[in-house]
Amino acid sequence: MNKRFGPPSVLLAIAAGAMLGTLLRYSINAAAFDSIFPFGTLMENWSGSALLGALTGFFAIFTVREWISAGLGVGLCGGYTTFSTLVSDTVLLGSALSPLYIAAYILPTIVGGIAFAWAGFAGGQRLGRKLRSSEEGRRL
Amino acid sequence: MNKRFGPPSVLLAIAAGAMLGTLLRYSINAAAFDSIFPFGTLMENWSGSALLGALTGFFAIFTVREWISAGLGVGLCGGYTTFSTLVSDTVLLGSALSPLYIAAYILPTIVGGIAFAWAGFAGGQRLGRKLRSSEEGRRL
Repeated sequence: MNKRFGPPSVLLAIAAGAMLGTLLRYSINAAAFDSIFPFGTLMENWSGSALLGALTGFFAIFTVREWISAGLGVGLCGGYTTFSTLVSDTVLLGSALSPLYIAAYILPTIVGGIAFAWAGFAGGQRLGRKLRSSEEGRRL
Repeated sequence: MNKRFGPPSVLLAIAAGAMLGTLLRYSINAAAFDSIFPFGTLMENWSGSALLGALTGFFAIFTVREWISAGLGVGLCGGYTTFSTLVSDTVLLGSALSPLYIAAYILPTIVGGIAFAWAGFAGGQRLGRKLRSSEEGRRL
């Protein structure tokens, strides 16, 4: 976790990533077939968790400039996924205390999100190691 | 849930809201005191859920233009809160399967988020009714 405020390039990259990610989320929700069950938000939170996991795993092996990692992680993945909609939907649908809704939406979102982030992290690390070893191979 | 793609004014408002919300989230995380426990993300997800709940409750009483509600809801609250960081942090910290971490971070985030969204929704509706009745009072 980076605990200092980044330079302008980082802030610009975060802003651009946030715009792209949020408009992508909005487009998916607009295109999602009408249903009381928020499939769109579920898909966004799952795929965004996989992507952030993969990026984190990759950048743990392959160091990139801060504006690239912050723009893709904090900006793109942060804007693309949403927590407020996840919990507000449960209130909006008047089912905040419904065990069925929690079992069918909240719980799979969380458990799936962790699993996708974990799988993404492992995949990202593997890709990073592969690219690094092929780079080292070229140097020999 | 709006299932059609909005006009340019809506897309622009979402993009602007997303930038603001995401930079605000980044600033809070940068300022949050260094700790293994993600206090910053917890605070953002709780307060963003309260805000989206309040906006949703208020707009249920008080109809506003679509660019305003989408810019504040989809854009600002969506960019300000994050789901991918919530689940990726558990993987990053190598504690995805730790019951302690789930009990100390994931569960309070979810339960608190729902409670804050619910309280915000009730508060937003109350404010909307108050404003509407004072408006009607002036018309008499």
